Amino acid sequence: MTAPLSAAPLAAAERLRIRSGANSGQTAGLAPGHVQANLAILPADWAGDFLRFCQANPRPCPLLAVSEVGDPRLPTLGHDIDIRTDVPRYRVYREGVLMEGPTDILDLWRDDFVAFLIGCSFSFEEALLADGLPVRHIAMNRNVPMYETNIPCVAAGRFGGTMVVSMRPMVPRDAIRAIQITSRFPSVHGAPVHFGDPAAIGIRDIADPEHGEAVPIEPGEVPVFWACGVTPQVAIRNARPPIAITHSPGAMLITDLLNTHLSVL
Amino acid sequence: MTAPLSAAPLAAAERLRIRSGANSGQTAGLAPGHVQANLAILPADWAGDFLRFCQANPRPCPLLAVSEVGDPRLPTLGHDIDIRTDVPRYRVYREGVLMEGPTDILDLWRDDFVAFLIGCSFSFEEALLADGLPVRHIAMNRNVPMYETNIPCVAAGRFGGTMVVSMRPMVPRDAIRAIQITSRFPSVHGAPVHFGDPAAIGIRDIADPEHGEAVPIEPGEVPVFWACGVTPQVAIRNARPPIAITHSPGAMLITDLLNTHLSVL
Repeated sequence: MTAPLSAAPLAAAERLRIRSGANSGQTAGLAPGHVQANLAILPADWAGDFLRFCQANPRPCPLLAVSEVGDPRLPTLGHDIDIRTDVPRYRVYREGVLMEGPTDILDLWRDDFVAFLIGCSFSFEEALLADGLPVRHIAMNRNVPMYETNIPCVAAGRFGGTMVVSMRPMVPRDAIRAIQITSRFPSVHGAPVHFGDPAAIGIRDIADPEHGEAVPIEPGEVPVFWACGVTPQVAIRNARPPIAITHSPGAMLITDLLNTHLSVL
Repeated sequence: MTAPLSAAPLAAAERLRIRSGANSGQTAGLAPGHVQANLAILPADWAGDFLRFCQANPRPCPLLAVSEVGDPRLPTLGHDIDIRTDVPRYRVYREGVLMEGPTDILDLWRDDFVAFLIGCSFSFEEALLADGLPVRHIAMNRNVPMYETNIPCVAAGRFGGTMVVSMRPMVPRDAIRAIQITSRFPSVHGAPVHFGDPAAIGIRDIADPEHGEAVPIEPGEVPVFWACGVTPQVAIRNARPPIAITHSPGAMLITDLLNTHLSVL
């Protein structure tokens, strides 16, 4: 990201609380206005393929930053970030299988690890709310519903698979406005990839999301679907690297970047 | 409009053909790249209300230019335009009733007439086609289907009524792209006002448009609705001024402006 990075005491304070163990849960609503990010950590010999996978699939995998090999700092996202401690809860995958859920990865860190930070829909949801658009799962205090689809990702080396999408129900007038707003935020998934008929993108049952929690779709509303940052976790499960570490869904890295600075317009 | 006005020999040549009587029909596809405009002419004592009606309803009635009282020229739209002769076919309304369809209005012109030129969807359709998006009625060589809705316009003095919309069927992926593209063109109706269920905006029968010609909606497509420049004709019929002159649908004023110059982004 080329957005200017300035002191962000709110974000830094939340990271310190997380680092100290005082928050091992969700980050939704913390440090309002600041970009939160999805995390994927891979060994260097898998990082090239994964970087190409993200580059080829910018809607689900918009890269905000990539660390130096073995370096847990992310200076373009925050002055003092240590990716080994600053996420509330991690997921450790071995051979593509989720094995552990630690609150830090100090003991697991290796000098060949590369950290990938990927944009998160929290950023555009803040823009939707600021425009007066209702966001159902936030109003209901639920995690956003997420669905496996049949939309193919572009494969890159050992990484490939299908796209995961998040869903927000809206009346068409609001959906049109939401398309305009989210189009300004390509680094946090951008415009929707679909609206309307769930079966058209291979969704099995709109009432039973594979990730997150279901929300009701009221009469006159249509489901609107955005590419989702859970997609890289599916690609990691498919690729089965010896080790990979991600954040736990909803427990994101809080950065010093401002959401408004991600807007391209 | 503040777009720069430069010599437009293609547009000027088409206007001369129209002025000479060699073209008294449609203007679709003529002088590619150039803005075409809807026309409404009213006596000065009705023009203030109509101007306020357009200002209050920019989606259906985006004003490109307003003439000086009694002056048939439109110097911001083209160096040599004479609005009395440069539209292929006119419609003359008396007390809100369509009475005549002349090919010029030299004998009808009055020194208290004011001409209003309103943006036309031809401009954004060109941008859709340039982006590779299919436009059904163009592919079928038909006039766009237009529908009366229950969407209220903001009333202004004696002018009021409901919105007329045009419809283009698209798969959702293309509709999302079309929303992005047309959002850049607020002076030619801008983003859609609705998609999906026609009954939600009071459309009686999607297969039987009140204006233009029906087009099929294929499986997987949804109808997408844009505010339409026929809306002011409905307002004129409702207001019943002693005389009002419009263009005949599809027989537009060809201006020297370039469609690309209307884009705000």
